[in-house]
Amino acid sequence: MKLEEALNIIKPADETAMNQCRARWDSIAKPLHSLGRLEDGIVQIAGIAGTHEVNLDKKALVIMCADNGVVEEGVTQSGSEITAIVSENFLELNSCACIMARTNGVDVFPIDIGIMRDTRVPSKKIAYGTKNMRREPAMTRDEAVLAIEVGIETAFELKEKGYRIIATGEMGIGNTTTSSAISSVLLDLPVETVTGKGAGLSKKGLERKITVIRESIARHQPDREDPIDVLSKVGGFDIAGLAGVFIGGAAAGIPVVMDGFISTVAALVAMRIEPKVAEYAIASHVSNEAAGRLLLDSVGAKPFITCEMCLGEGTGAVAVFPLLDMALAVYRQMSTFEQNDIEAYKPL
Amino acid sequence: MKLEEALNIIKPADETAMNQCRARWDSIAKPLHSLGRLEDGIVQIAGIAGTHEVNLDKKALVIMCADNGVVEEGVTQSGSEITAIVSENFLELNSCACIMARTNGVDVFPIDIGIMRDTRVPSKKIAYGTKNMRREPAMTRDEAVLAIEVGIETAFELKEKGYRIIATGEMGIGNTTTSSAISSVLLDLPVETVTGKGAGLSKKGLERKITVIRESIARHQPDREDPIDVLSKVGGFDIAGLAGVFIGGAAAGIPVVMDGFISTVAALVAMRIEPKVAEYAIASHVSNEAAGRLLLDSVGAKPFITCEMCLGEGTGAVAVFPLLDMALAVYRQMSTFEQNDIEAYKPL
Repeated sequence: MKLEEALNIIKPADETAMNQCRARWDSIAKPLHSLGRLEDGIVQIAGIAGTHEVNLDKKALVIMCADNGVVEEGVTQSGSEITAIVSENFLELNSCACIMARTNGVDVFPIDIGIMRDTRVPSKKIAYGTKNMRREPAMTRDEAVLAIEVGIETAFELKEKGYRIIATGEMGIGNTTTSSAISSVLLDLPVETVTGKGAGLSKKGLERKITVIRESIARHQPDREDPIDVLSKVGGFDIAGLAGVFIGGAAAGIPVVMDGFISTVAALVAMRIEPKVAEYAIASHVSNEAAGRLLLDSVGAKPFITCEMCLGEGTGAVAVFPLLDMALAVYRQMSTFEQNDIEAYKPL
Repeated sequence: MKLEEALNIIKPADETAMNQCRARWDSIAKPLHSLGRLEDGIVQIAGIAGTHEVNLDKKALVIMCADNGVVEEGVTQSGSEITAIVSENFLELNSCACIMARTNGVDVFPIDIGIMRDTRVPSKKIAYGTKNMRREPAMTRDEAVLAIEVGIETAFELKEKGYRIIATGEMGIGNTTTSSAISSVLLDLPVETVTGKGAGLSKKGLERKITVIRESIARHQPDREDPIDVLSKVGGFDIAGLAGVFIGGAAAGIPVVMDGFISTVAALVAMRIEPKVAEYAIASHVSNEAAGRLLLDSVGAKPFITCEMCLGEGTGAVAVFPLLDMALAVYRQMSTFEQNDIEAYKPL
């Protein structure tokens, strides 16, 4: 599906379904709203799916895997070769995200959207990594749109396969660098405010990273009113693909869960392209990466989990599934005030 | 087991087991400490259990159920009769906590430690509810110690049955009133700072609740250096029983998970009786009740979950189990840097 077509079919979330869902929550024999934002999460999902009969039986984790040319500037602690190794490990379910997914009955779909070498990972490759953004735009505008369309297509495929919710993850050495660059431009914040140590940079490494991001932005002058321009000049294929999953989820009517910093940047790009996407994106945790909280605030989301995780791969998004499952079990199985012969809790 | 005996056998957590656990985490092929406080939680459990081979296969939720005489002062929105009804619902697994427990394979053990009428709930009853603390001490000092010993006994029984971790919950109309009273005294904070709307009081109801707590404290002058004095004068049997579970868990070497406001108050009482108990108490969520965050800070714990839950019954404590299970799955199953032939992440 083309980007324009997807954008055209995004509807606002279903108010009727949300109201019915809220009414069911309020009828359950427990203090009003005492499961807090877990209740709100189920209401949001009802609005997305268009029915108060919420079903989360089949869950997917999409992991967009891609390399970033900017890694040659020494902004990371690991080399680009790690992207392919870890991405192929996803196939053997030998990664943190996969183990956590398996524990929760979540199916994992890694996608090679731009790893720098051929891999055994199912390929929807746009190119063998992006260009080094310090020297030239990371990708062309056409490539950015194609990568977004890969994500849109993925969301529709998963919806057709019967999945009810999609967690987002990424693997790509250098992608906190691109995420910080996009954040700095879209949020109009100084680079140092939105740049952290990634997977463990030293103080000196962090300074280098900040300098490289500053120089990349200065060279290309991305237009903050044009999110695709920003994405193509200082972004990555993984972020573009995930932005597409958020847009595709909104178009297909399937909730998409934000993970940490990088995934939330992708959600922000998607929301800047089409604000209605915000109604379809579900928060999970707040990343320990410097800009994690800032980014969540920028998309108007609050975390369910605050464990100082910063692993990526979709680990935080997957971690929220059992919480939603528990809330949904209460929503479906718990008796009402009426059934229990208890008067509804009313303020004195 | 007598309280004194339990206190005498509490050892500090096992440093060797914790160091071995940390070393295993650091060898796993992922950025260092990238599962954040989930890693710390597993390390803490290793120290409690005395082995780095952490096992959480069998999990229990203990729900201490009791009535509070102070309810006759109109400090709650529901009458005391609700305590027995909801507590008996636990037996049919028809409550929010039970549904969430079932979803996670957790066995539920409700205990009637002081409901005001006879119930079908397994009884370790100290009395038919406490006295109205606005008029007389809630219980005698002997009763407080007996209730603590019920909790100690419960922790040892569960340990003998093979349980590896205990979540704490409570059911007792009026127990946010007693919890606020204990908090005010032990933390030396104004009553209004630690008093909230409980299960949904109006503004006027809240004012009444604050007045009743103030008058109760003024009448009995509990000694903040003597936690059992405080517990007996302005506490409840549920809180005393849970304080006993925390002490018993520390004595038996089994981790005990704090739930929300009331359970954390019980943990605070236990830690004031014996500071080493803090090493055996695991945080879960931060309650939306006014003093939730304050109480967690007072016991030096940080929440894993921030969903604005305030249901009680152990719902927050149970909610943290799948997060610990996911972390433990990574801890046990994930390959190491050495196995993956990847150089360990090192700062540049």
